[in-house]
Amino acid sequence: MTEVPPLKMMPVEKKAKGADARLEELGIILPTAAAPIASYVPTVEAGGMLYVSGQIAFKDGHLMTGRLGDDRVLEYGQDAARACGLMVLAQAKAALGSLDRIARVVKLNVFVNSTDRFTDQPSVANGASDLMIDVFGEAGRHARAAVGVAALPRDSVVEVDAVFALGAD
Amino acid sequence: MTEVPPLKMMPVEKKAKGADARLEELGIILPTAAAPIASYVPTVEAGGMLYVSGQIAFKDGHLMTGRLGDDRVLEYGQDAARACGLMVLAQAKAALGSLDRIARVVKLNVFVNSTDRFTDQPSVANGASDLMIDVFGEAGRHARAAVGVAALPRDSVVEVDAVFALGAD
Amino acid sequence: MTEVPPLKMMPVEKKAKGADARLEELGIILPTAAAPIASYVPTVEAGGMLYVSGQIAFKDGHLMTGRLGDDRVLEYGQDAARACGLMVLAQAKAALGSLDRIARVVKLNVFVNSTDRFTDQPSVANGASDLMIDVFGEAGRHARAAVGVAALPRDSVVEVDAVFALGAD
Repeated sequence: MTEVPPLKMMPVEKKAKGADARLEELGIILPTAAAPIASYVPTVEAGGMLYVSGQIAFKDGHLMTGRLGDDRVLEYGQDAARACGLMVLAQAKAALGSLDRIARVVKLNVFVNSTDRFTDQPSVANGASDLMIDVFGEAGRHARAAVGVAALPRDSVVEVDAVFALGAD
Repeated sequence: MTEVPPLKMMPVEKKAKGADARLEELGIILPTAAAPIASYVPTVEAGGMLYVSGQIAFKDGHLMTGRLGDDRVLEYGQDAARACGLMVLAQAKAALGSLDRIARVVKLNVFVNSTDRFTDQPSVANGASDLMIDVFGEAGRHARAAVGVAALPRDSVVEVDAVFALGAD
Repeated sequence: MTEVPPLKMMPVEKKAKGADARLEELGIILPTAAAPIASYVPTVEAGGMLYVSGQIAFKDGHLMTGRLGDDRVLEYGQDAARACGLMVLAQAKAALGSLDRIARVVKLNVFVNSTDRFTDQPSVANGASDLMIDVFGEAGRHARAAVGVAALPRDSVVEVDAVFALGAD
């Protein structure tokens, strides 16, 4: 009798096919990859992984600012998290040439600008997580940490960084 | 003369033997692996590592809530960090079948719900760190970051995520 | 026609040569690698990477404390971030024997003790980022996340953790 791996484990080898095509299908146009606002680079490829720097919430060239539990409602936060996710993808595409090189979305860290009374960081973070699943399908299902922080760069309402596993090709 | 590697470096090859057995010895019964409260998965295996999503502090099916420096004392925080650590192990075991596949605990990130006056995040985080050493022995010694955050999902008092290195088998 | 990789991608194989020599050239004397203040280790080597635990801001044996937006100005924060970066390098050197084993600085996470009004975490974090570029040159250019947190261990004004890719030798 051979052991059956747990259902939720998906081998990295099961490459996401056609993430670029899927973007087009969904009518998603990635933003222009933003230049880092400081002394770092947007992405580093190492050990078969692509590490993407924390991206803040640019939408239509404007930054989405504010704080959940204070001046911003859940829907605004979700929209901002999606905007961060789009910028993460824009940086990955700029670095890799094509999102099709991504075999798996491994991990997202989602930092939500929060008062000490706001406790629904997971729903905010879904704005970014749902985007990954829309674009990559099963290979888009990722590990995640979502926390509420006191302050973010330029008063962005959300910041998201990411680790992607790359395929052999 | 050959170079001697620094004592604190432990090769990943030195596999933890019997973490499952050690759990039993210690009388530790892992909680039921909690379903993610949002659009992500509890674990992703990639590049020989297992990435575990941020786990909040469930104990006996109830969430341990509150904030250090405000309504919670150090011991409560440590207990919550241990509860997060147990859930991290429960997720790893559900994904891997056996904790014996883990060769090394690589990194824990410990987010402590803190007022701006509470500064003993390291002692809180030890609740999770000591558990790893209890269960994995030397292979349980890990890198760590512990920080105080403004707010956590569902008002959990602690959140812990993890990276494990997997053995060849 | 062959595809040209985007300029910003640097292969990990392009090893930083002479980081130890560069430290000397710059007149930088690393601090004594601090003992962890809790149940963890300063570094773990796994999967070709060195994971360095979150380092707080020791300078000349004293901790740099306080909060941006409150009792500390930008320059103090930058100096503290550089102090964290120096301790990250001290831990890496203690673990590896020589910084020359580092092929690439992959990722820094920079946690800045911030009030909810301070939003220039990127400029603070540059204290650590610029140090990496000074010491490693192009191989020092890294991915980064910088966020503002409510509180840090021992009231440190900054905490920095790191992932380094190691060379074949």
